Amino acid sequence: MATRREVAEAANVSVRTVSNVVNGFPTIAPETRARVLRAIEEMDYRPSKIARILKRGRSGLVALVLPELDTPYFAELTRAFVELGGERGFTVIIDQTDGDPQRELELINQSDHGTLFDGVIVSPLGLADTDADAISSERPVVFLGEETHPGFDHVRIDNFAAAREATAHLLDSGRRKVAALGAQRTLVRSSSIRLLGYRQALEDAGVAFDPDLIGYVEEFRRPDGAAAMARLLDGPTVPDAVFCFSDPLALGAMRTLHERGLRIPEDVALVGFDDIEDGHFSFPTLSSISPDKSFIASRALELLSAHIDGTAVKPGEYLAPHRLVVRESSV
Amino acid sequence: MATRREVAEAANVSVRTVSNVVNGFPTIAPETRARVLRAIEEMDYRPSKIARILKRGRSGLVALVLPELDTPYFAELTRAFVELGGERGFTVIIDQTDGDPQRELELINQSDHGTLFDGVIVSPLGLADTDADAISSERPVVFLGEETHPGFDHVRIDNFAAAREATAHLLDSGRRKVAALGAQRTLVRSSSIRLLGYRQALEDAGVAFDPDLIGYVEEFRRPDGAAAMARLLDGPTVPDAVFCFSDPLALGAMRTLHERGLRIPEDVALVGFDDIEDGHFSFPTLSSISPDKSFIASRALELLSAHIDGTAVKPGEYLAPHRLVVRESSV
Repeated sequence: MATRREVAEAANVSVRTVSNVVNGFPTIAPETRARVLRAIEEMDYRPSKIARILKRGRSGLVALVLPELDTPYFAELTRAFVELGGERGFTVIIDQTDGDPQRELELINQSDHGTLFDGVIVSPLGLADTDADAISSERPVVFLGEETHPGFDHVRIDNFAAAREATAHLLDSGRRKVAALGAQRTLVRSSSIRLLGYRQALEDAGVAFDPDLIGYVEEFRRPDGAAAMARLLDGPTVPDAVFCFSDPLALGAMRTLHERGLRIPEDVALVGFDDIEDGHFSFPTLSSISPDKSFIASRALELLSAHIDGTAVKPGEYLAPHRLVVRESSV
Repeated sequence: MATRREVAEAANVSVRTVSNVVNGFPTIAPETRARVLRAIEEMDYRPSKIARILKRGRSGLVALVLPELDTPYFAELTRAFVELGGERGFTVIIDQTDGDPQRELELINQSDHGTLFDGVIVSPLGLADTDADAISSERPVVFLGEETHPGFDHVRIDNFAAAREATAHLLDSGRRKVAALGAQRTLVRSSSIRLLGYRQALEDAGVAFDPDLIGYVEEFRRPDGAAAMARLLDGPTVPDAVFCFSDPLALGAMRTLHERGLRIPEDVALVGFDDIEDGHFSFPTLSSISPDKSFIASRALELLSAHIDGTAVKPGEYLAPHRLVVRESSV
């Protein structure tokens, strides 16, 4: 492999000019740049990541595309991806979409980042199932979450079973007015599936479904949980337990219950979803469905590696384990 | 500008081969690749991000290098960077260092990412002042936080003034046993400076410094806050107020106070630092120092832009505004 000096001599420029071309500085005459690039290519000089990408077809960069970074669940999941990716020799970098379908599609198709990434792991929020046709990426893509995109690998948890377990746990304690907080009027699939799991648990226990016990939200955040809890308490059926579709929703609901002078769990029991660290230190501590975040990250990276190595044959769907962690808010 | 087809004809290859070279696929003969690259260069064909980087010296990518992503303060700051970066035409991607000085240096020097980024904004945790000599990046670097690295732009808040204000607020209510929770035995500068601000406020109020009222922590997280609060309560001087160096520390301390049956703020008042959303919904809600995160992001991006455009002349230091937000935990 040639040195930078040899390249400089071959192209009849200074060593500094070679560096400037390699570093993409804009102030170089096009003919000079072309001459240096030709010398770089012909002499097998690999000065930078870019040359290595062109040479080997690998950058070592993986993009993790998430709707939100200031949601604790995604922040904790990101940590798992960065750590486990590092073990596999990937540098995982993160991009945030705000759930905008256009931006999700752009990032997947990499019209923006070009071919800098070896692959993309994406947790879509806005991107509907049908949009999968618009995916034109030539790079491997692995999806996280409930939305199914035919032809791609998916890693998700069993939201139906998890919601059913959480609701059953509340019903098992004898509570009969169990609310579901986190329904959405838009078609977010994980929310709809959690609602189905909740209804199944009611049916299993022979408890009639009461639409007045459904709390609707815009987003899965604390302010939404606080407001929806207030509406439930002011509604025709006051709940004695609430299954919240995320921990931030439950922590918002908890705040409203404290404000109203209601005791948790004596007056109203709570279970959340995601098992974020916040709920381990709330008062009371929060019972929650705990998805195995390390499993999700590790399986998704494994699938991506298989695609990059060319050993992947057929896309599959994978379930990450989850468990119900019972804490003070529901016992 | 040439089309892909014209490039293919000039290099005497198929259109597909041009795509494969552009996309960095490894299965192409070196001579073919060299021929295609030469044609691309000579014909001014700009097929991908990589070609555009080589051509214009700009990728539009900015790296934000942070110690932790699952710390709510950094997660909220990241959101501000992604949004404000987008307005400036930057795609901000995020990398996590865990505060490892070696990794921080690597990311700054871009030995890892090569020259893919137009610039780097870094919030160093491990990197000491003296390590600045080891920074060899040819790309613009802007630092966030207290550590000073001569020759680089810095954006930070006035930690001394903020800590002094928070402590003075607790002293103003007549409390005299005001603890500081968040001291560190390592040389993390922001922690040391907050401790100095705390001591200045005591001096301003004529209150003697009591080393038994200093709570030490390893990290600025909930478990550390809970444990340090327990040690303070079991120590020789029981505090009637605590200034916590981060909101997660304060929320951990809050949990311990609840467990011990102590009332907030009646028995022990609390003030945190960072003003994260969690503290708006805790019980009680948390008083906190609120740094202007939008200002930090916007100023750092502005400085980086000036370097990229070549209009920056001399590195400077910039203070972002902050304010004390008083909530239930301290009134």
